[in-house]
Amino acid sequence: MKTIGLVAKPRTAEGVALAKELKERLPDTTFLVEAHHGQALGWPHVSGEELGYRSDLVIVLGGDGTLIHAARLLKGRAVPILGVNLGSLGFLTEVPVPELFPMLDKVLAGQAVIEPRMKLLCRVYRDGKVLVDDEVLNDVVIAKGALATIQDLELVSDGTFVTRLRADGVIFSTPTGSTAYTLSAGGPIVSPALDAVIVTPICPHALTQRPFVVPGDQQLEVRLPGESNEVYLTIDGKTGLPMRRGDRVEVRKSGNRAHLVRNPERDYFSVLRQKLHWGER
Amino acid sequence: MKTIGLVAKPRTAEGVALAKELKERLPDTTFLVEAHHGQALGWPHVSGEELGYRSDLVIVLGGDGTLIHAARLLKGRAVPILGVNLGSLGFLTEVPVPELFPMLDKVLAGQAVIEPRMKLLCRVYRDGKVLVDDEVLNDVVIAKGALATIQDLELVSDGTFVTRLRADGVIFSTPTGSTAYTLSAGGPIVSPALDAVIVTPICPHALTQRPFVVPGDQQLEVRLPGESNEVYLTIDGKTGLPMRRGDRVEVRKSGNRAHLVRNPERDYFSVLRQKLHWGER
Amino acid sequence: MKTIGLVAKPRTAEGVALAKELKERLPDTTFLVEAHHGQALGWPHVSGEELGYRSDLVIVLGGDGTLIHAARLLKGRAVPILGVNLGSLGFLTEVPVPELFPMLDKVLAGQAVIEPRMKLLCRVYRDGKVLVDDEVLNDVVIAKGALATIQDLELVSDGTFVTRLRADGVIFSTPTGSTAYTLSAGGPIVSPALDAVIVTPICPHALTQRPFVVPGDQQLEVRLPGESNEVYLTIDGKTGLPMRRGDRVEVRKSGNRAHLVRNPERDYFSVLRQKLHWGER
Amino acid sequence: MKTIGLVAKPRTAEGVALAKELKERLPDTTFLVEAHHGQALGWPHVSGEELGYRSDLVIVLGGDGTLIHAARLLKGRAVPILGVNLGSLGFLTEVPVPELFPMLDKVLAGQAVIEPRMKLLCRVYRDGKVLVDDEVLNDVVIAKGALATIQDLELVSDGTFVTRLRADGVIFSTPTGSTAYTLSAGGPIVSPALDAVIVTPICPHALTQRPFVVPGDQQLEVRLPGESNEVYLTIDGKTGLPMRRGDRVEVRKSGNRAHLVRNPERDYFSVLRQKLHWGER
Repeated sequence: MKTIGLVAKPRTAEGVALAKELKERLPDTTFLVEAHHGQALGWPHVSGEELGYRSDLVIVLGGDGTLIHAARLLKGRAVPILGVNLGSLGFLTEVPVPELFPMLDKVLAGQAVIEPRMKLLCRVYRDGKVLVDDEVLNDVVIAKGALATIQDLELVSDGTFVTRLRADGVIFSTPTGSTAYTLSAGGPIVSPALDAVIVTPICPHALTQRPFVVPGDQQLEVRLPGESNEVYLTIDGKTGLPMRRGDRVEVRKSGNRAHLVRNPERDYFSVLRQKLHWGER
Repeated sequence: MKTIGLVAKPRTAEGVALAKELKERLPDTTFLVEAHHGQALGWPHVSGEELGYRSDLVIVLGGDGTLIHAARLLKGRAVPILGVNLGSLGFLTEVPVPELFPMLDKVLAGQAVIEPRMKLLCRVYRDGKVLVDDEVLNDVVIAKGALATIQDLELVSDGTFVTRLRADGVIFSTPTGSTAYTLSAGGPIVSPALDAVIVTPICPHALTQRPFVVPGDQQLEVRLPGESNEVYLTIDGKTGLPMRRGDRVEVRKSGNRAHLVRNPERDYFSVLRQKLHWGER
Repeated sequence: MKTIGLVAKPRTAEGVALAKELKERLPDTTFLVEAHHGQALGWPHVSGEELGYRSDLVIVLGGDGTLIHAARLLKGRAVPILGVNLGSLGFLTEVPVPELFPMLDKVLAGQAVIEPRMKLLCRVYRDGKVLVDDEVLNDVVIAKGALATIQDLELVSDGTFVTRLRADGVIFSTPTGSTAYTLSAGGPIVSPALDAVIVTPICPHALTQRPFVVPGDQQLEVRLPGESNEVYLTIDGKTGLPMRRGDRVEVRKSGNRAHLVRNPERDYFSVLRQKLHWGER
Repeated sequence: MKTIGLVAKPRTAEGVALAKELKERLPDTTFLVEAHHGQALGWPHVSGEELGYRSDLVIVLGGDGTLIHAARLLKGRAVPILGVNLGSLGFLTEVPVPELFPMLDKVLAGQAVIEPRMKLLCRVYRDGKVLVDDEVLNDVVIAKGALATIQDLELVSDGTFVTRLRADGVIFSTPTGSTAYTLSAGGPIVSPALDAVIVTPICPHALTQRPFVVPGDQQLEVRLPGESNEVYLTIDGKTGLPMRRGDRVEVRKSGNRAHLVRNPERDYFSVLRQKLHWGER
């Protein structure tokens, strides 16, 4: 590991302290940090883009949002991501601070468990052009704006009409994202070992329009009929693109995956139990 | 009945035809219409406000949204509202066109069944002043704007802290409104014979935050903590007021009720069965 | 308080110790205990029936099930019930052991807060006779037996047909019972300050058959059509009466209420927050 | 096609009429029928077992339950099943009567679309012996008996502890079964193109115990802890095996699949729309 990218949640003293400790322990490694982190550390910084294409390993110091940001910087590169949690336990950043260095030792010794996670590819077409072309670790949300009115969205799967949805919106999520917004909207938890897309209507007008799960390689599409207005597209909780009539959103499995470093002693279900208070009375 | 207000859905030929037929059948009655309807009819029109305070009976020609609009025009006046449905069956405008004149005869003969429906009073306080003071037939929605981020709302009931809600928002609904947005968000159906407020979190982050029902005379309150942004208040699907940090929204039972004319042969559950396809396989 | 009934969960050392401590502190009071408790204590015991009609106060040492049992013993008598929790926090037995004596002092000084809770009356008619006539603190459950087949139940409200239900069963619950089985089956939480019955289908075949809430004084009725078999009636989790074709179950508000002693510093919502882990992330 | 098995719902005149018409149209084909159908037809009959291992094609005349029965008779054999619906539209028997002969022509011409559907293998171990070893098209249900008490079930996945479930029971379903009992219990709809098992708690005590979906090749296991009583195992709605303490139920993907003949013009989503009234208002 010549080069390690550090992606930290802004303004956390712990993120600064851990970066310094990492540098001390690995004097021969080049550490890349983004502007806000570099300023806090007094280190030179690089652009997120440069961090993304130069790092051989990325260490995330923050929460799930920070890890999603790191995954975006890496784009399609198959670089391991070690997520260290600085707040409450995350679904993605599942390594607590005291485990950082033991886990890092395993990564450097080539003994870490790396779990590849399915990503989605989201493309928005407008007037025959590609407006958005993005990779997605958690979810794509197409939802109404502020006013409590209901939209008509047309859902298509592999060219076949699925349903016209009157709802607050719809979520397309990866298995990884099934424990995020999808769960709040009533969707199922889907094992990350499965290549699938979960489609969850948000507050559907028709009570029979339930969440459904399709194979990852099925192409899903949302079409906005003429009368739509104030509909927004949000990818991994970040972008909020206003959509226009005639826009077409395509969602399908990406050829790339995110490569998360996992503690083999902390299985998927133990994280679920902890986060969801399973088994408590 | 000296004066009948006609509140019609804009641009429906049927709304125009029915208005003309009503005038023909009741030549001694004064009919009041709003601007858009008057223009379509070639009749003089009055303001919604004037229609509201002069009418002895209001006939709604449209859907549930039109009836909600009519109820707003009446403010606190105990005037019967006869809702005639021009589209698909409504929960509120349950009288189909062929029943209009038989029902009207009953109303004029003083033989109609009038069902009083609880309304809410919604007040918004900002900087010590009352910003909004409105009556509500269906629901008050406090919800996030376009971006798929999650808000922290503090819920208080009769001065007692209830919960801090991380969700897309929260709905306060009357029993009448329980079959509207509340139902889509997972809330229960509540009989209009009950004086109660239904509080339904929208896509709550914590799965244990379930809808709850409190007595109508309990005062509910939402407080927006400092860090909130892009939160909107919507009353009966109409207003979309942007809220600010420190705003306080109070919801309680109004002293006024809406007075809906009902066909005694079409009970509440038969409307539910028809609208929700109960009993179909 | 001349006579205090002690209703204890069987075989708990704490129930024995607390009974002895109570007797020591209140030497002039007569304590009534049932057989199992009396044997554990080496005290004389009375029948549950006698405990029910002689006690001026009932102290429950156990969990919610124990308190429900105590309420049944009291039948219609307006005697305060002080529920002390010996296990994990209960919705009904909300007083932890260390608060028992301070709370008891308040009760004896006439300063306790007593909260009356609505009860239901459940009657089963078979062949023109009353087969069951029982009071209900939590819920009446009519549900299928072991085999995973689906029943047809006919629901009637105040003589009006509501729906034919294809489901695993149906729950009729008081507001008190809304946090018990009703909540697991997807029903709402209903404030005990409201006189209402919550009707919750269990795993309904039609997704649109949602929980609904009606006023307490509305009479509800379930009729078992001819083809039913293996349907059971369960009241407050205790009885499991096999039902027959033609049976009719009536549920309505009882004229009696359960009178729970409450700690005024522990409001309803704080119990909800603790039991349901509201607000945790 | 030398031999066609006819599996008919008992006591339907249409099942008799169609059987006769089939024999008339295909005089050179041997038709096998079970006892009840043979008696109604006045034909010789065979055992279900013989029908299962001799048929080259099975035509189902009935509903989804009848098709499940036919699939069981076939055991592991890869024989096409043509499901003709005699009642209301089925999820599995999606061919209406008027389409039977056109569809059959396609099958005989080798032009039919055959959709293989994942099956589960369910094994029950008791005292070190295999008590049940069965194939499953829809679902395996482990649920409590008549009394409304709650069980503790221990869920294990590929040897890893998942959760201890306090619930009415749990459903393990194939994607095919996801639109059956699983849907009523709040589970998601899962495309039959996906190899997955859906695990859905029935009325779980903890609201956070949500349905989850795992890859088909993951082995799932339920263990009954000591204190369990009155728990039953039901496979495809048929068997109701009483379980004992210490029993172990294993569920995993079967190596065999059911081969359903499908009308290529009636896609999966169109059946969903029709059955679930999607898109209606």
